[in-house]
Amino acid sequence: MPNRRARDLGITIGRGTPGPLNAITDVAGVRVGHRTVIRGDDGAPDAVRTGVTAIMPHEGRPWLEPVYAATHILNGYGELIGINTIRDWGTLDSPIVLTSSMLIGKAYDATVRWIARQDGDAGEAVMPCVTECDDSFLSNVLAEPISDDDVWGALDAAASGAVEEGCVGSGTGMQCYDFKGGIGTASRALEPEAGGSTVGVLVMTNHGDRQNLLIDGVRVGERLRDDMPIEHTEGSCIVIVATDAPLLPHQLRRVAERAGMGLSRGGSHASNTSGEQLIAFSTANRVPRDGAPYAPAAVPDGSAAGRILSAVFRATVEATEEAVVNALFASRTMTGRSGNTLFALPVDRTLELLGAAGRLSR
Amino acid sequence: MPNRRARDLGITIGRGTPGPLNAITDVAGVRVGHRTVIRGDDGAPDAVRTGVTAIMPHEGRPWLEPVYAATHILNGYGELIGINTIRDWGTLDSPIVLTSSMLIGKAYDATVRWIARQDGDAGEAVMPCVTECDDSFLSNVLAEPISDDDVWGALDAAASGAVEEGCVGSGTGMQCYDFKGGIGTASRALEPEAGGSTVGVLVMTNHGDRQNLLIDGVRVGERLRDDMPIEHTEGSCIVIVATDAPLLPHQLRRVAERAGMGLSRGGSHASNTSGEQLIAFSTANRVPRDGAPYAPAAVPDGSAAGRILSAVFRATVEATEEAVVNALFASRTMTGRSGNTLFALPVDRTLELLGAAGRLSR
Amino acid sequence: MPNRRARDLGITIGRGTPGPLNAITDVAGVRVGHRTVIRGDDGAPDAVRTGVTAIMPHEGRPWLEPVYAATHILNGYGELIGINTIRDWGTLDSPIVLTSSMLIGKAYDATVRWIARQDGDAGEAVMPCVTECDDSFLSNVLAEPISDDDVWGALDAAASGAVEEGCVGSGTGMQCYDFKGGIGTASRALEPEAGGSTVGVLVMTNHGDRQNLLIDGVRVGERLRDDMPIEHTEGSCIVIVATDAPLLPHQLRRVAERAGMGLSRGGSHASNTSGEQLIAFSTANRVPRDGAPYAPAAVPDGSAAGRILSAVFRATVEATEEAVVNALFASRTMTGRSGNTLFALPVDRTLELLGAAGRLSR
Amino acid sequence: MPNRRARDLGITIGRGTPGPLNAITDVAGVRVGHRTVIRGDDGAPDAVRTGVTAIMPHEGRPWLEPVYAATHILNGYGELIGINTIRDWGTLDSPIVLTSSMLIGKAYDATVRWIARQDGDAGEAVMPCVTECDDSFLSNVLAEPISDDDVWGALDAAASGAVEEGCVGSGTGMQCYDFKGGIGTASRALEPEAGGSTVGVLVMTNHGDRQNLLIDGVRVGERLRDDMPIEHTEGSCIVIVATDAPLLPHQLRRVAERAGMGLSRGGSHASNTSGEQLIAFSTANRVPRDGAPYAPAAVPDGSAAGRILSAVFRATVEATEEAVVNALFASRTMTGRSGNTLFALPVDRTLELLGAAGRLSR
Repeated sequence: MPNRRARDLGITIGRGTPGPLNAITDVAGVRVGHRTVIRGDDGAPDAVRTGVTAIMPHEGRPWLEPVYAATHILNGYGELIGINTIRDWGTLDSPIVLTSSMLIGKAYDATVRWIARQDGDAGEAVMPCVTECDDSFLSNVLAEPISDDDVWGALDAAASGAVEEGCVGSGTGMQCYDFKGGIGTASRALEPEAGGSTVGVLVMTNHGDRQNLLIDGVRVGERLRDDMPIEHTEGSCIVIVATDAPLLPHQLRRVAERAGMGLSRGGSHASNTSGEQLIAFSTANRVPRDGAPYAPAAVPDGSAAGRILSAVFRATVEATEEAVVNALFASRTMTGRSGNTLFALPVDRTLELLGAAGRLSR
Repeated sequence: MPNRRARDLGITIGRGTPGPLNAITDVAGVRVGHRTVIRGDDGAPDAVRTGVTAIMPHEGRPWLEPVYAATHILNGYGELIGINTIRDWGTLDSPIVLTSSMLIGKAYDATVRWIARQDGDAGEAVMPCVTECDDSFLSNVLAEPISDDDVWGALDAAASGAVEEGCVGSGTGMQCYDFKGGIGTASRALEPEAGGSTVGVLVMTNHGDRQNLLIDGVRVGERLRDDMPIEHTEGSCIVIVATDAPLLPHQLRRVAERAGMGLSRGGSHASNTSGEQLIAFSTANRVPRDGAPYAPAAVPDGSAAGRILSAVFRATVEATEEAVVNALFASRTMTGRSGNTLFALPVDRTLELLGAAGRLSR
Repeated sequence: MPNRRARDLGITIGRGTPGPLNAITDVAGVRVGHRTVIRGDDGAPDAVRTGVTAIMPHEGRPWLEPVYAATHILNGYGELIGINTIRDWGTLDSPIVLTSSMLIGKAYDATVRWIARQDGDAGEAVMPCVTECDDSFLSNVLAEPISDDDVWGALDAAASGAVEEGCVGSGTGMQCYDFKGGIGTASRALEPEAGGSTVGVLVMTNHGDRQNLLIDGVRVGERLRDDMPIEHTEGSCIVIVATDAPLLPHQLRRVAERAGMGLSRGGSHASNTSGEQLIAFSTANRVPRDGAPYAPAAVPDGSAAGRILSAVFRATVEATEEAVVNALFASRTMTGRSGNTLFALPVDRTLELLGAAGRLSR
Repeated sequence: MPNRRARDLGITIGRGTPGPLNAITDVAGVRVGHRTVIRGDDGAPDAVRTGVTAIMPHEGRPWLEPVYAATHILNGYGELIGINTIRDWGTLDSPIVLTSSMLIGKAYDATVRWIARQDGDAGEAVMPCVTECDDSFLSNVLAEPISDDDVWGALDAAASGAVEEGCVGSGTGMQCYDFKGGIGTASRALEPEAGGSTVGVLVMTNHGDRQNLLIDGVRVGERLRDDMPIEHTEGSCIVIVATDAPLLPHQLRRVAERAGMGLSRGGSHASNTSGEQLIAFSTANRVPRDGAPYAPAAVPDGSAAGRILSAVFRATVEATEEAVVNALFASRTMTGRSGNTLFALPVDRTLELLGAAGRLSR
């Protein structure tokens, strides 16, 4: 039985209205697939608690129909294969594959062959976008945790509709403010006067220091100091922002940077050993591959652009903040390698703290 | 009679301990000078409500003893003369001069001559660091608002000790979340195990949309919707971070970026027409000018650096968040050109809202 | 009587074909204006040898019709007001004004008022793009070298047609590889299969070390070691690249960076005290100011884009290399403050060296 | 029998003096290892012509003793795992592994395990630096070209001393200006007044368009138009710059960027489908891993720094230019998959062209 999501429990992050699913998949065409890999008894030295999550920017093959994209690296102790192509070409032409830090090589290699199976030419040319957080606290990262099948499984599973959150896919072994964390998602539907587009966010959390945790601005972390892991391991946070607003690459870079502002709202200061890697893409244009001049849909820059751009910025901040909270609420206590345990956020006590602060709507 | 500061009223931003002055000047040697320029009757078309603020990185002449520095531009609708030298040389070798957007030319020109009066050679070589926010809502920026004397006055006034906040110096005509804003400052004294250094922040606010304003995580902006200006003019925010932690330029860039995370905590999403320009410098080293190899004090990078670096990051986020709140509390209602008025934050109602959310310590 | 240009003398830089004027003004609509300021006897301590050059991106008012633009700072000891807006908004909405390092404040201030005279609203909002090289070897930069009239004169003089080169406008007091330098320009007309667009370049040289000077790959600098200035003062180089190819901001950043590759061809390694500031803009789109979605002309990214993009890149490299050579050939010996003299490139000996290397076409 | 190197044949790139080996290994401690993988008959569809090259920054384990490093991406169609850590931490803490584009996943994965075999903890934490060029013209990149053993072989082979050039290691299947290319190296020994340090460069070439090829400024490419491959495939170029000059990360970024200026000297304009990825590191400091403040050796920034920094910049430009020429001279004609052939530079004709231009010293 899935946990209930934060908003269903009366927590209202920000002022905007979520899309129907309150998920990155509210942006039409965006697909998400998970493969969860759990192996070995709780506490076994070689226990594996890991996985792969794949985000497809649309319903087709991105190497045939790239979309505009950009990244911002808020904090650099993390790696993002694809970052250079995205910067210079301004396009995303592959799935975005998330996994464990030490497994990005395996994931890259398997994704190349997955693409090659569909289009041999692309398999020789497309350098897939792969990024990571470090799940080594719960998962033995040197125990050959994943196979090609696991990567292909996540890629093949990519689907629209509701997105499973918590300890699933690449989020399986991740933490969040010293609680169990993982995958979270949220979205915002912009009002017609702001362009009417949708902004969807997916996070893979692995960051945060318990005592700094804020939920909707309330300092719950200071009051939830038990159930700490035996070791504080501050990792990274990946944020993927999707939108159907017709943004150009230089505008998407600004959107990506706002995702980091959303992390800050939750209590992050992007600590030294973290890797806050932020990716934004727009589904509004499919960049032609024949090189002939064309006329993409675009928002013109300048003061008047604020009507649309600032709305996308605010939606990004809010949806990122909410996606992290969703990851916390969806995750359950997990024990992994060598007895290491990450405990789930105590939902009842959290709601109590929020209620006392006047931050529960029901 | 100065207003009381937020912390004196029971508002406790973050978890860290401020320095003795809770100001950027808690970093030994840092000096701040203001020159406030108020001219013309309230409401007159040519009323001027502007000024100049100067920050000296230490007690000496920065062109003789540069310090390491870095910048991060969170949002680019704003300009920062000096940005390129700071990036490539990693040093700040001049005062940082803050003023009105249209006046950076005047301020640059006057600062060049101020330097030249002291050291002719430097006057021919040092390109001073000048940055800005737009105060044109209250101040007629084309009415020759400032003279050389005003710039020199701010530079000559630079002193250690308590820093005047609110509608003073370059903050005179600025706003903050549609309230009257201006200059704010705050600091954090790090614990010995975090290196024992001090982080001080000075902000010039001119950003924010009322309904998004958060104070200590509480959504006060939603509840304080009267006393709006006749026009919403979303401007910029300059943040100067000073520290005596021995940070190298590439580390200071990371510190500067964290200042933006502090703005986010207050409700900013760095809207399209804003210019969030973030500067960080360290007073720990005076970079020799003879080019001979030397051995600066430094924090080594790597996981273990987090002990010091992450503490500086958190201090920067917190002090930035608090400095913005201090700017709000210190500012008073002001009427400028053509009857335009910015109203002060209603302190009593604000405290009431914070109290109801359990966020007042007394 | 103007000197003859390098190409007229048989020097053929690169493989591409110049436009009709071999100048930045071959890009339709681009206009250039110079104001030369020469004051004081040769050798007088307060002699002024300076000026202002203005580039208008099209025949209209850029604040009403911005164009896409980008910058690359190859070397940072130089400042470029406007850099942040260009990066985040991707647009150039003002003239580009070139002058002496210490005079960018004056030039900014005068340009603000020049804009305000035409459009009061713009005068309160547009932060003009101003950049610089250091002409203090020949010019007393503290002797109030320029007035508002000088800036306005350059702006008002902006015209299409042939561009005056050498010791003119902002290039008046500048050097080039220890010879007299200044303004240079060149262009390339792309073939139809490369999109048929034009790339025009204007440089303000103030860089280079004599012994490194290459002309068309020939090491002429090593062989032209007399007529050295009494002091080697390595300054900066500003390169403005204009094109009517329909490039988006992220593509123009790549174009700007290629201008630095063109400087390298001439013998530059962008030495420490230099400020290689590179700006590129495209006249193909006028960005609407009402914020409503639109469809700009664009080159799609990806492998196939190389047909157009790589051609623009090569044209940029070649035209930049040639523009520097043109600046050298057009400049004449000048004596400035305190007897400081920069000598003109000895054209006959240069041609002889090129001829011996087989690099003269006639 | 190895081919003779360019300098031995009378070609003198630039003005500086090479170190004893004219190789990256002239920087004390730097080690290079190659593993060449040639499989399948000439012309077979599944022929493999690839390999791995590893650069160790010093004689020890870089994860125990990181060095300061920086990167510059001149052109982004190429990927560099490690780029984010290098940027934010300013350090290189792993070997640099070069291979084929589609094989960076394999190489990453194998390098993780190679590190783990030596230090289990590091194997769980160090994200190795891996970068690539595309050798798919000669090599079937989907035919599982390399094994873990190949990666380990290159890593284990890393040694000081002369560096094998040409069709070796990761350079095995690469091209250069439509000739056969591969690995090249060169160095410069700075004069005592420039700090006396050494700058060493290693390139993996896969870039360039024949007609643009310059050798020592002479347009040899225009005159060597036969022996063209059946397809022009413009790839990337990786440049590794090592120095023992005590440079800090922000200074090394400038050095890395200069490597691109060296590529330009050879005729590159960094075409659209290329990936010019530039890495610089300094062996002067081993960054302590305990986080305690320390005092690294450093060059202070500022005008006087030019004595050392500009010398390093020029050395980088020259050594990069020469390393590319060395790759050309060392490479021999190779036939790979499906009959694709890359022809060696015709050395005699090249020397003839250089001689005619007066560019042969003997």
